[in-house]
Amino acid sequence: MWNERLTWVKALKSAVPETLKTPLEVAAFEAGQVCGSVRFEVRKDWREDYEILPDQDGYAVIGGETGVLNGAYALIRGLETGKIPQGRKTPFYPLRMLDCWDNMDGTVERGYAGRSMWFEGGAFDYDPARIRQLGRMLASCGVNVVCVNNVNVHQPAQHLTDSLLPDLARFAAVLRPFGISLMLSIDFSQPMQEGLPTADPLDSRVAAWWAERAAAVWAAIPDLKGFLVKADSEHRPGPNAYGRTHAQGANMLARAIRPYGGQLVWRAFVYNCLQDWRDTKTDRPRAAYDLYQPMDGQFDDNVTVQVKYGPFDFQVREPLSPLLLGMKKTRLALEVQLAQEYTGHQIDLFAMPCLWQDIFRRMGPEKVQAVAAVSNLGRDDNWTGHPFAALNLYAFGRFAWAPDAEPEQVIREWVKLTYDLSAEQAEALSRLLLQSPRTYEKYTANLGLCWMVRPHDHYGPSPYGYEFDAWGTYNRASRDAVGIDRTETGTGYVSQYPAALKELYENPRTCPDKLLLFFHRLPYDFIMKDGRTLIQRLYDDHFEGAAEAEDMRAVLSALSLPEADKAEALERMDRQIRNAREWRDVTNTFFHRLSGVDDKKGRKIYE
Amino acid sequence: MWNERLTWVKALKSAVPETLKTPLEVAAFEAGQVCGSVRFEVRKDWREDYEILPDQDGYAVIGGETGVLNGAYALIRGLETGKIPQGRKTPFYPLRMLDCWDNMDGTVERGYAGRSMWFEGGAFDYDPARIRQLGRMLASCGVNVVCVNNVNVHQPAQHLTDSLLPDLARFAAVLRPFGISLMLSIDFSQPMQEGLPTADPLDSRVAAWWAERAAAVWAAIPDLKGFLVKADSEHRPGPNAYGRTHAQGANMLARAIRPYGGQLVWRAFVYNCLQDWRDTKTDRPRAAYDLYQPMDGQFDDNVTVQVKYGPFDFQVREPLSPLLLGMKKTRLALEVQLAQEYTGHQIDLFAMPCLWQDIFRRMGPEKVQAVAAVSNLGRDDNWTGHPFAALNLYAFGRFAWAPDAEPEQVIREWVKLTYDLSAEQAEALSRLLLQSPRTYEKYTANLGLCWMVRPHDHYGPSPYGYEFDAWGTYNRASRDAVGIDRTETGTGYVSQYPAALKELYENPRTCPDKLLLFFHRLPYDFIMKDGRTLIQRLYDDHFEGAAEAEDMRAVLSALSLPEADKAEALERMDRQIRNAREWRDVTNTFFHRLSGVDDKKGRKIYE
Repeated sequence: MWNERLTWVKALKSAVPETLKTPLEVAAFEAGQVCGSVRFEVRKDWREDYEILPDQDGYAVIGGETGVLNGAYALIRGLETGKIPQGRKTPFYPLRMLDCWDNMDGTVERGYAGRSMWFEGGAFDYDPARIRQLGRMLASCGVNVVCVNNVNVHQPAQHLTDSLLPDLARFAAVLRPFGISLMLSIDFSQPMQEGLPTADPLDSRVAAWWAERAAAVWAAIPDLKGFLVKADSEHRPGPNAYGRTHAQGANMLARAIRPYGGQLVWRAFVYNCLQDWRDTKTDRPRAAYDLYQPMDGQFDDNVTVQVKYGPFDFQVREPLSPLLLGMKKTRLALEVQLAQEYTGHQIDLFAMPCLWQDIFRRMGPEKVQAVAAVSNLGRDDNWTGHPFAALNLYAFGRFAWAPDAEPEQVIREWVKLTYDLSAEQAEALSRLLLQSPRTYEKYTANLGLCWMVRPHDHYGPSPYGYEFDAWGTYNRASRDAVGIDRTETGTGYVSQYPAALKELYENPRTCPDKLLLFFHRLPYDFIMKDGRTLIQRLYDDHFEGAAEAEDMRAVLSALSLPEADKAEALERMDRQIRNAREWRDVTNTFFHRLSGVDDKKGRKIYE
Repeated sequence: MWNERLTWVKALKSAVPETLKTPLEVAAFEAGQVCGSVRFEVRKDWREDYEILPDQDGYAVIGGETGVLNGAYALIRGLETGKIPQGRKTPFYPLRMLDCWDNMDGTVERGYAGRSMWFEGGAFDYDPARIRQLGRMLASCGVNVVCVNNVNVHQPAQHLTDSLLPDLARFAAVLRPFGISLMLSIDFSQPMQEGLPTADPLDSRVAAWWAERAAAVWAAIPDLKGFLVKADSEHRPGPNAYGRTHAQGANMLARAIRPYGGQLVWRAFVYNCLQDWRDTKTDRPRAAYDLYQPMDGQFDDNVTVQVKYGPFDFQVREPLSPLLLGMKKTRLALEVQLAQEYTGHQIDLFAMPCLWQDIFRRMGPEKVQAVAAVSNLGRDDNWTGHPFAALNLYAFGRFAWAPDAEPEQVIREWVKLTYDLSAEQAEALSRLLLQSPRTYEKYTANLGLCWMVRPHDHYGPSPYGYEFDAWGTYNRASRDAVGIDRTETGTGYVSQYPAALKELYENPRTCPDKLLLFFHRLPYDFIMKDGRTLIQRLYDDHFEGAAEAEDMRAVLSALSLPEADKAEALERMDRQIRNAREWRDVTNTFFHRLSGVDDKKGRKIYE
């Protein structure tokens, strides 16, 4: 039994009983904890929608089958924050998925909150009470699908579609009352592991094999949302091995699951991971667009191509992936990463809403039909390692419902729902969170510099750590200049954008500072918009970022948080401060050794 | 059953039967395979010594209990190579040990030849026939002690001194007929794992615990050579935790095993492994001398302090550790590493005899009483991963008997004993091997540059891989200069040497080129002894080294080697060539980016 920690559902003191089997039953139970009189009215065709109306002494919640539960949680949130939503509400993205990189051995790939909550030792192993609590958390913020296993499918997760299916069905049943359905990561080569001589998507035996398997899977779990596939990427099997396109691979699988309403989600994270650093023509950020854009229109309508928000891999700052703007005839999903792989491992504070606002603002709402987030959850008592990291999960759900949300508002809402603080302290914590990504970016990867991280674990600075590697991750810093020229006369990456964005990024005078070295190779004496030289800006940001991290500790110390949360947050803050100093000093020394330029303000740069 | 591969004992076609129980019996059996008439005469007080004399139609071998076996192998070698040794022979170092970093889970730390030959799954697991063949190999080259388990003692190896003792005794019995005894790595904190509240060496309960344990161990294995300890190093437990010196820690253990003639071997590989790269005063190469030299004279006479050949950690090129010259009142062991951790992982060719000649020449024979080598063996059919890597084991044994050996001669001897080649081909292979370390050094770490390797695995270039780390491993390369000033006005490391060496190293004009950047920080335009600039020399060596690696392939291709050896050697040579190109290009690019100086000869340096 885990030591119950509540985060944003603290108003709900009683656990959801296992006897409740439908969203309506859960809705009535949950609303009853907070409000004396709530009447529910189910309108089938409303699906996830809801509307809250005043009703005699209390409220009426009108909604679809799961909409009533969404409405119940919206009502609870409204009562807590003093803002009851008006009018009928519809989630912007119908598919709002949490991608869990949980392996069946109990490890979580890029997991920073302990081991898997539901796998251990090659089998399902979970506390149903905790999974119900998870269901409550996800439903109450807006997530409606959980992909249960790592996209890098390791044994025995292949058996989730056969011998482990009954266990999977039982797990699905625990989350079903919360309106949450499951997605399954599958292994493209699976037919070969079970006797077929090929996994060629155009081989009729392969299609038949998957059709049979889909029938068995959906017989066990009729509301399974679909399959998620990572193919031909970072050594995973895929259709390219048979000379087939990704569209052919995806469509074959999509047709197998179509009879059951299944969605086939196909990850577009495909690039040459055996690149040669000597090769200055190949440019990894180009890869996904170059591969997928020509296939626009070739995917079946129950295929969704899932695209990471940036063209690399969840760096601290990347421009929006041009693929998200360039496939008008394809269903797309935007993928973000709550797991703080490159953003501080849930040790350093990094609130994500500002980043998402940036992304959604560029994307425009019409381009993408779904959102997915790599989970930051684990078996730790506080769910997310750092207690404040739960904000990112909460905010993801909120942005998935309403991508035009304001970061400030979502952060304040989470603070209010999570902690009993005075108005002043709540504001201090909200500001701390709001500031956190900018601070982190300053001391780690300012101006769009990517990949200057310690190889493998990705925590801590290593300016040349990925410089001569095979991953396409270079900054080419020399004694004169730094960055990659991705303009038309460089790698041409910028040409993958629509005209307006292309024009913005193409010119270092208009390119936003935060992406400057992502798009441009510039000399250290380049004059920035604010008049500073590039090298001085590099130094300044690193000094400022580390100083800000130190200042954050005082703010945190003054907060009246629950004892456990405060102890965890302070202990992690101390590690963040050490990390920030290390980033500051290593990065400044690196650029000082290269450039030979001293800091104008005479601050300490080590030899 | 392993697929038998013979290396330098190819003349011995028949396996040593398990019925033979003494070195004399083995000697008679082995000699009988090669020579019709050999008479043996045991003289007890000759111990390991032997003398070979003509005797009627054959030979007489006079020797001590194990000396007769040494003589038998010397005779066989002499008959094969046409040089029968004259006069009584005595091994220069009485203790000639192979340190096996074998873990009981079957892995080998820094092992490049497969899994452990005797451990698997937490238990002993071996083919006695193979261990007898190993005994033959070791005895025939001159090794007389095997330390069976990793100096980093992991569970359950702690139980080698109690519940696993019968298994250890059985293993010892397999090697005993070859005159080989065992050494055991122990865990300094072991008493605490079995109930004592402390491992303080001055606590009488601790001393009593070890005395009792020693009695049990030597009762089971009366000829056990002793215990090997790595303490207070890289997070291992040790006496410092109790405010005691290493002499106090070692002596306590030495007294426990003294009644049985046990030797206590104490590794001097102790340094601050949590160093701060900002700190330019602390200098890791100083550490062992600073710690141990003041303790000279404090160690009991059955303690041996085992010192790595250089002050760092088995880099491609290091100066001789000053500790080996600075402890006149202490028994010392020299430690080398056959396992090619930094010298190519038994993929790249690296014959070690030239390196050892350098070391022994500086050391002078009177200073050190024992030699130990980290093993390069594993479960691979060919014993050492690369079939030619067996040369290093063979040569280690030969140098341990006679440290004034000539590398050329030992290499030719190994080639002759291992392969049936024409005189011309044997010479070609010998020259290939002889050249190999110089080639490797050129393309990897020329001029004494250390640690520019990929972190963790240590294969492949990473110029800044250990630059901002905590291991004390820096080159501080900047746009103007590279290297660490270790002269008197620098870190002062050079002052740990006797006057003549100090003077030699102190001045960049007299310091040997191969150690130049180990001792000095120099600008890229420094003029070398041969008139080239430092930067040009850096480029030249890397271009030459990579070209030499490519040339080596042609030599290898032309050799009439056994099929398996040739295939393995060629496949590894192809990987070496790729590795050499990578080193060349990464290193040259690194220094070109920093210095901005072009190659005088206009060869390709990537951006």
